[in-house]
Amino acid sequence: MTMLRLPSEVSVREVGPRDGLQNEPPVPTEGKVALIDGLSQTGVKRIEAVSFVHPKAIPQMGDADEVWAKIAKNPDVRYSALVPNSRGAERALAAGFREIEVVVSASDTHNRKNVNRSTEESLEDIKAIIALAHKENATVEVVVSTSWGCPYEGDIAVDRVLDVASRALESGADALTYGDTTGMATPTRVEALVTGTQGRMPDVYLGLHFHNTRGTGLANVLTALQLGVTNFDASVGGLGGCPYAPGASGNIATEELVHLLEDMGVATGIDLERLLLVAAEAEKLVGHELPSQVLRAGPRTRTTPLDA
Amino acid sequence: MTMLRLPSEVSVREVGPRDGLQNEPPVPTEGKVALIDGLSQTGVKRIEAVSFVHPKAIPQMGDADEVWAKIAKNPDVRYSALVPNSRGAERALAAGFREIEVVVSASDTHNRKNVNRSTEESLEDIKAIIALAHKENATVEVVVSTSWGCPYEGDIAVDRVLDVASRALESGADALTYGDTTGMATPTRVEALVTGTQGRMPDVYLGLHFHNTRGTGLANVLTALQLGVTNFDASVGGLGGCPYAPGASGNIATEELVHLLEDMGVATGIDLERLLLVAAEAEKLVGHELPSQVLRAGPRTRTTPLDA
Repeated sequence: MTMLRLPSEVSVREVGPRDGLQNEPPVPTEGKVALIDGLSQTGVKRIEAVSFVHPKAIPQMGDADEVWAKIAKNPDVRYSALVPNSRGAERALAAGFREIEVVVSASDTHNRKNVNRSTEESLEDIKAIIALAHKENATVEVVVSTSWGCPYEGDIAVDRVLDVASRALESGADALTYGDTTGMATPTRVEALVTGTQGRMPDVYLGLHFHNTRGTGLANVLTALQLGVTNFDASVGGLGGCPYAPGASGNIATEELVHLLEDMGVATGIDLERLLLVAAEAEKLVGHELPSQVLRAGPRTRTTPLDA
Repeated sequence: MTMLRLPSEVSVREVGPRDGLQNEPPVPTEGKVALIDGLSQTGVKRIEAVSFVHPKAIPQMGDADEVWAKIAKNPDVRYSALVPNSRGAERALAAGFREIEVVVSASDTHNRKNVNRSTEESLEDIKAIIALAHKENATVEVVVSTSWGCPYEGDIAVDRVLDVASRALESGADALTYGDTTGMATPTRVEALVTGTQGRMPDVYLGLHFHNTRGTGLANVLTALQLGVTNFDASVGGLGGCPYAPGASGNIATEELVHLLEDMGVATGIDLERLLLVAAEAEKLVGHELPSQVLRAGPRTRTTPLDA
């Protein structure tokens, strides 16, 4: 087996409480707290817990301060908050977060629809956010959304994405994540953007955030693994839909990712059986079936009794 | 982009009318005929149309003769029938099929549950089926099911699968397909079995049949493509479930496969938009939502109007 060169371990970031719940009907604060606390006992090392956005824009995240105050902070877990702008960054820092993700879209159209300003304006704001955060000893990860395509503009040129990412790094970003906002990535596109990044920004701490909107999520992960990427976002149960395609899937499901990786000998540190219990709870929390296949079928190691 | 070495084209076999419908509640004969006829206009070159099994075992396929008699035979399409034993092969040949697939399980336990005899007994029968078919100028493909694991036995050793496959080829089989009956394959397991096959049976016409029960289907396809495999089964809409896991997905969805391949520059000859119309009809036929993500979200090229 010499073809598939895979890393020995990867770091999974659980984004269900934020990216997942943000795209589901609102759930009670206590449910969010229980979800995050359940996740923090699975062995996952990073959880994107909340976002600090205007509650009129995204009512699902209106209780971010309360959620953060109530969760049991597991010292083995790094919790992060996503922010759309300086105001959100100030709130996240004031709440005590020391890991901030700030999002900017490679698509100008998407950025305007999302935060009502141009990509350029967001990049300027990011510079200010980074300065602010570093003063508080917090780190800032820049998430470049629509990195593999925009639901309005269609394809986004690799060079455009690389330019936006480079600008963020020049402004002092500590890490970079490419977001496949509406599941438009495919393996050859992943290869093009990742190798382009490795060429222009060889030292970057790079994460990838795939949505499974068109079923390509795990094939994209496999490609990225072969290119040496070791940081991936996923959401428990596959929580979260696609706002542009009713009924379509959201993030890749954490159980599917862990199941795939562990079977291939790529360690995640996550206890799959424990994670599946949390996924079942997540399903109850949102009140509908979640797209995770491993939640439905069970892991491949779960055999059927012969007399069944 | 030098890492992903992909073939320039692949041959997709549509198995929705057989493997799909066999695992769905029964549908009327006319619906099956319309489904097959719709598929034969999409550009797909191979369709697994029916199976000749005992109607008490699989009532869904009880009208195989009638379906076959009624469909419009597109001369550009190769139609095949799946059979479990000699009796089924005789019926398929009498009906006029000149491409027969015969299934044998690498798992003895699964083979006994499926056809009430040992793998060894099925292999002996296959020898007789091949002789019979070749006399009628028909070809026989042997499908080795549970090639990546058995729902009862768990893992199946690669050597066991290779032994069963070799026996079939020695008996004169014209082609070989490995079936991932309950979606237990992952990329490293695909690599192990495919490279093992290429080592022991370098000249075999090899096809792969993945189920997406645990979300790994397209990652498995990607791995196989990188190893040079160019024949894949898929079912329109992702028709068909998993008999061992209620609610779990069946075959990989043809639209998802075509969408992935075509975007990567791997030609299938299939018109995706036309296929999506057939998938929507398939959904009406079975009366419930099908798992195909591309059916739900549309292809990545389908953008949203800005004022939406």
